[in-house]
Amino acid sequence: VVSAQEREGCKSLYAVQAERQEQAERSVLISCHTRTNEKKFLKYLSMHGDINKYFFYESYGMYAVVEFANRESLASLFEEAAIPIVSHESMVPFKSRLLSLRNLGSADPPNQQSGQRCQSQTTIPINELIQRLSKEGSIDQQMTSLTDVYQLTEENSRLRFLVCSLLKDIAAAYFPECTIKPFGSSVNGFGKLGCDLDMFLDLDGISGRNAKMPKSGFLLEYQMKQTNSERAVTQSILSVIGDCVDQFGPGCVGVQKILNARCPLVRFAHQPSGFQCDLTANNRVAMKSTELLYLYGELDPRVRHLVFTVRCWARAHAITSSIPGAWITNFSLTVMVLFFLQRRSPSVIPTLDHLRDLAGPADKSFIEGNDCTFVSDFGKIHLQSNPETLERLLCEFFEFYATFPFNKMSISIRQGKELNKPEVAPLHIQNPFETTLNVSKNVNATQLDRFVALCKESSWLLQQTETSKARGGNVEKAPAPWGLASLLVPLQVAVTKGRKK
Amino acid sequence: VVSAQEREGCKSLYAVQAERQEQAERSVLISCHTRTNEKKFLKYLSMHGDINKYFFYESYGMYAVVEFANRESLASLFEEAAIPIVSHESMVPFKSRLLSLRNLGSADPPNQQSGQRCQSQTTIPINELIQRLSKEGSIDQQMTSLTDVYQLTEENSRLRFLVCSLLKDIAAAYFPECTIKPFGSSVNGFGKLGCDLDMFLDLDGISGRNAKMPKSGFLLEYQMKQTNSERAVTQSILSVIGDCVDQFGPGCVGVQKILNARCPLVRFAHQPSGFQCDLTANNRVAMKSTELLYLYGELDPRVRHLVFTVRCWARAHAITSSIPGAWITNFSLTVMVLFFLQRRSPSVIPTLDHLRDLAGPADKSFIEGNDCTFVSDFGKIHLQSNPETLERLLCEFFEFYATFPFNKMSISIRQGKELNKPEVAPLHIQNPFETTLNVSKNVNATQLDRFVALCKESSWLLQQTETSKARGGNVEKAPAPWGLASLLVPLQVAVTKGRKK
Ligand SMILES: Nc1nc2c(ncn2[C@@H]2O[C@H](COP(=O)(O)OP(=O)(O)OP(=O)(O)O)[C@@H](O)[C@H]2O)c(=O)[nH]1
Ligand SMILES: Nc1nc2c(ncn2[C@@H]2O[C@H](COP(=O)(O)OP(=O)(O)OP(=O)(O)O)[C@@H](O)[C@H]2O)c(=O)[nH]1
Ligand SMILES: [Mg+2]
Ligand SMILES: [Mg+2]
Repeated sequence: VVSAQEREGCKSLYAVQAERQEQAERSVLISCHTRTNEKKFLKYLSMHGDINKYFFYESYGMYAVVEFANRESLASLFEEAAIPIVSHESMVPFKSRLLSLRNLGSADPPNQQSGQRCQSQTTIPINELIQRLSKEGSIDQQMTSLTDVYQLTEENSRLRFLVCSLLKDIAAAYFPECTIKPFGSSVNGFGKLGCDLDMFLDLDGISGRNAKMPKSGFLLEYQMKQTNSERAVTQSILSVIGDCVDQFGPGCVGVQKILNARCPLVRFAHQPSGFQCDLTANNRVAMKSTELLYLYGELDPRVRHLVFTVRCWARAHAITSSIPGAWITNFSLTVMVLFFLQRRSPSVIPTLDHLRDLAGPADKSFIEGNDCTFVSDFGKIHLQSNPETLERLLCEFFEFYATFPFNKMSISIRQGKELNKPEVAPLHIQNPFETTLNVSKNVNATQLDRFVALCKESSWLLQQTETSKARGGNVEKAPAPWGLASLLVPLQVAVTKGRKK
Repeated sequence: VVSAQEREGCKSLYAVQAERQEQAERSVLISCHTRTNEKKFLKYLSMHGDINKYFFYESYGMYAVVEFANRESLASLFEEAAIPIVSHESMVPFKSRLLSLRNLGSADPPNQQSGQRCQSQTTIPINELIQRLSKEGSIDQQMTSLTDVYQLTEENSRLRFLVCSLLKDIAAAYFPECTIKPFGSSVNGFGKLGCDLDMFLDLDGISGRNAKMPKSGFLLEYQMKQTNSERAVTQSILSVIGDCVDQFGPGCVGVQKILNARCPLVRFAHQPSGFQCDLTANNRVAMKSTELLYLYGELDPRVRHLVFTVRCWARAHAITSSIPGAWITNFSLTVMVLFFLQRRSPSVIPTLDHLRDLAGPADKSFIEGNDCTFVSDFGKIHLQSNPETLERLLCEFFEFYATFPFNKMSISIRQGKELNKPEVAPLHIQNPFETTLNVSKNVNATQLDRFVALCKESSWLLQQTETSKARGGNVEKAPAPWGLASLLVPLQVAVTKGRKK
């Protein structure tokens, strides 16, 4: 049993979010020239107050994120900021925390080393990853290395919270007490550099909702526009915010209002960060799923390594895709990994029902009639001690789903066991919080078959390389892909598959 | 010559506007029950601070405008205000200064005289007006009486500024430094109770436009959405504000975005005030016209009496209309009255060119290449002493336009004389500030002919009644319409006209 102390460092997602959110409120995003001198840049900005943290990155140009120690510094900065003068164009005079820095007069000579170190906000291409992994000494090392390369950096996480905060400024114009929170892979611990930014407009903080009703005398109420459903309110709000982003939001392009979806959303690209953004509202269950995934990822490091590996493998073979369709989503795939880890013996992670049973009174959460309660205090969770290596788990994962009775059984991380399928669908994964729903009801038989076939192939391939793994630690350039690396080569798996047929 | 001292009390339109605007910022609009006890109401609201002024009025229900002495009182009021709880409906949680007061528990018994005196925000019907005027002793008295009945009350003016201020809150969400100013008949001194509310979004106050450009070092600029014209910016801003008003604005209904008009605008009805509202942006010339009309109206009381009389007469005979078409507008009609007064000998009011010549350096104003300069200091204007009575002026007005050479000549209040028509149009009235434009280019020959015929008829009718005016001072009920009153009876004029043909 792993003791609570070993996981002491874990912060709850709420605590992490609150801290990052607060940092973002004190930050600005500045577009600057590639040859901006870092020292001069800092000196210039420091006139407005102490800087806690800053970094440069590249995304269609050079940008800097600057976090001041105090919010007052922003006000001071804005006092100095000008509205750009352009000769042939007009502009919408909406002021935001996205600024441009112009170098006037004598710039530093180009030969001088005046530029700044620049963070990358994207991952390396798959072939580079394959090369890098091939140099590792073991499959376990390959899996941790893949996670290291793919996971969000601290800077990228800060940038995500900053984009939420910039969008919050737009929403707060009408709903001053609102917040915009990232959810999904941006914060659940399973996000890959470059993943989309899912955001959630939270209006629950609006005061005056539960005003005490006096017994007599007067009661003063705000007059408000009425609609016939909460959904209509959400659509209305997202529609206006979508228009604002489209018409006023600097750097926001390709705004689409998808208001008739089950969960209405506004989609747009935020050019200065390079993020594809999805803004939803009133989406509390998704926030709970995010918290749950985060918790599972924090319980045991193997969870994240396995999820990152399986996600990467699935993407390399077009099992998942960045466009919607009949394929398996990253979310479904993650739930499948979690389910697999629950089914090990002893189990690597507990069931959701178990986490619910550990919950204290403060953890109680019911959203639209669904019980979303589970324990928030990591210390209360006692794990069984499963000693399996990452390599073993990866092998077993492929084996598990290569032979899973998808035709009859449903996957439930709530109960941690196969259930009888309640409905006809090629793949049935019970939604953890809305248990009558199927998370993967979009998946068709062809896509499921491809997944199963790839699991079989990959399981077989891994067993093949198992014998040759002693050659690890090879530091020569471009060693042949082996182990996990060989599983990521699209052609190799395809060829093998052809051969076996 | 009328001395400057006699007009000392006159405030410039800017001063009047600034004061009303500031009052509006400290005011709230509260929907309440008809039987709300005035004393208790005041006691309840006074808990939040001193009240400078308040009044009740009726418009699809009972409302109160309450002006606090300090803005802090509003914050205190809002702290107590609740979000309404309705069982079957949802609402957009946008908070504004439009509130509802609910009477809880024991209301005052209905037989008790607990209600409050209630201001009317509309004029009396035309037949009532005719009756009332018929009781006056002279045509001069009839004309001043008509002005008294029709002109905006102080309360109505306050309500107009309050509606502008409520709308400003919506626009200020994105453009904190903006103002929304009423223009047109709401403030030019010629507005009739019930006239539309023309508003103008002023973004010129936005700081950072003329930032000093350092010679070297850094310049920080806001990143802003670019468009290819000022017009596109205006359309973009009005489009978003239109959506906000439509989706969030309590009491705002029938929102139309008319963005492809020469002057893009958002039109909507504000139910709590009963005002039909037109919001434009970037419309500085119209603001200047408003100032000019206001100035003319303040120079000599006869200006307003004659304009009110002519406007009322024109409306009674459907020479003007509340819907747009080929008819003469109130604005054109007003310019025609001003021109007539300039043409008297000695003139009642000076020409616009004269007002421009009197302008000081601070009065210089060029808008989009148009010289909109004219004197702002009323004291500098010395009028000729024209002694004509209102009756005389009214008679002469009809005579003047009954015989005006519309086919060849154009009306110019800038030069105060007929000009040769620069283009073919039945009616040509030079736009005072954009002198190449025709204010009445919408008017067709039929409408002009109707106007001229009615001028003839009315001139003739007035001469008929001139003899019988000694019978004035008749206080019996329902005396027969005479003088101005008879000019307002649609049938009478038509019949007379038939007889003469
Ligand atoms: N209940 C439920 N939640 C979902 C479903 N799809 C997505 N979500 C939730 O919405 C979040 C964001 O969705 P996605 O952007 O598709 O997935 P993601 O986890 O962010 O992974 P990426 O592919 O990296 O973006 C997920 O993390 C889930 O919490 C679903 O089908 N059912
Ligand atoms: N230059 C110019 N200004 C106009 C014209 N029409 C209207 N305006 C301006 O816009 C203002 C508002 O227009 P309206 O609402 O049509 O007229 P109004 O003077 O407010 O009179 P009401 O009929 O009582 O509303 C006017 O007072 C003028 O200042 C026009 O054709 N040319
Ligand atoms: Mg996502
Ligand atoms: Mg008007």
